[in-house]
Amino acid sequence: MCRNGISKATLSRIPVYLELLRSLPEERYEHISATSIARKLSLGEVQVRKDLASISGAGKPKLGYVTAELIENLENCLGSDNLTSAVLVGAGKLGKALLDYDEFEKFGIRIAAAFDSNNKVLNINSRISIQPIDKFENICRNNDIKLGIITVGAGSAQAVCDKMVECGIVGILNFAPCNLNVPAGVILKNENIALSLAHLNNQISK
Amino acid sequence: MCRNGISKATLSRIPVYLELLRSLPEERYEHISATSIARKLSLGEVQVRKDLASISGAGKPKLGYVTAELIENLENCLGSDNLTSAVLVGAGKLGKALLDYDEFEKFGIRIAAAFDSNNKVLNINSRISIQPIDKFENICRNNDIKLGIITVGAGSAQAVCDKMVECGIVGILNFAPCNLNVPAGVILKNENIALSLAHLNNQISK
Repeated sequence: MCRNGISKATLSRIPVYLELLRSLPEERYEHISATSIARKLSLGEVQVRKDLASISGAGKPKLGYVTAELIENLENCLGSDNLTSAVLVGAGKLGKALLDYDEFEKFGIRIAAAFDSNNKVLNINSRISIQPIDKFENICRNNDIKLGIITVGAGSAQAVCDKMVECGIVGILNFAPCNLNVPAGVILKNENIALSLAHLNNQISK
Repeated sequence: MCRNGISKATLSRIPVYLELLRSLPEERYEHISATSIARKLSLGEVQVRKDLASISGAGKPKLGYVTAELIENLENCLGSDNLTSAVLVGAGKLGKALLDYDEFEKFGIRIAAAFDSNNKVLNINSRISIQPIDKFENICRNNDIKLGIITVGAGSAQAVCDKMVECGIVGILNFAPCNLNVPAGVILKNENIALSLAHLNNQISK
């Protein structure tokens, strides 16, 4: 199941469900109910029931879910049995911070390669090598990359975005503070950190 | 007007409106209509009309808004005539990237001080000095800081959060990958970059 448009809120709880389920002794938890999961995690039962129904269908009456199946469905949902590769362009401070961020794998994603047009920053990151931008197309096509992260400045973001689209990327997370144009069929998501803080400021100033 | 819970989407467009309005020659644009703004920015007219109504009330029939008043209302909405100070705790890679991020001021916010418990990172940032954590309380109280950003690891995030609350901070933007508990009256917003990418991955995998 899953993979078809579950909400961001549900998605955010999947690593939490997985952590719990994987920690349970197998012999005592062949089955587990949404109620029991909700209680162990101090979450609302209605919420857990809805989350699990969207990911793994309805559990069996009285028994709940087969734990092993539920784990499998949750994992499939994240794709964490098979990590999705993403690429990042722009190895400035924010780009490098993202390369060091170790939360992506929990959500089934790994940054497979990073690129920068500035030769001075190449290969200085400890975990993921930073490559010259002219290798971008080859690496994307050879690895069938579908997911891209833009961490360049506003001035070059559209050019990077166009390049990503040209190379077959269909999902782009943009950190550059500007609007980008993408053709139909490509999903663009703008991540504006200043905006999040401004919105919070607006809420506390009420 | 404003300041009372406008949407994040509307908020995101305020700097765009301001940039346009400030660039218009005053003598020719004493008044401006929502229609005209929408056309100049290639935005939907309904959207612009709704945004401006929530910020500056309805414009005058036929004339539209008094440009100078509209600018003032938009500025008040961001508080950009008087920047709101925020503090940041955790000067690792992500923290430092945020300290260098120059978008905050567009949204009426400046990071007034940053703190870290590791003496090795103190004062090495070019723009905002990084202070030892034991100065946190004094600086927050003396400057009546209400807004905090957490960029420490998951292990110390709750302690930092508690400290912030204790020092009078009522809005917290948390980048640590964990749930935090705050008392009633404090607004906590979690910013999970991996989750944004995972959600995008989920959408393109449909």
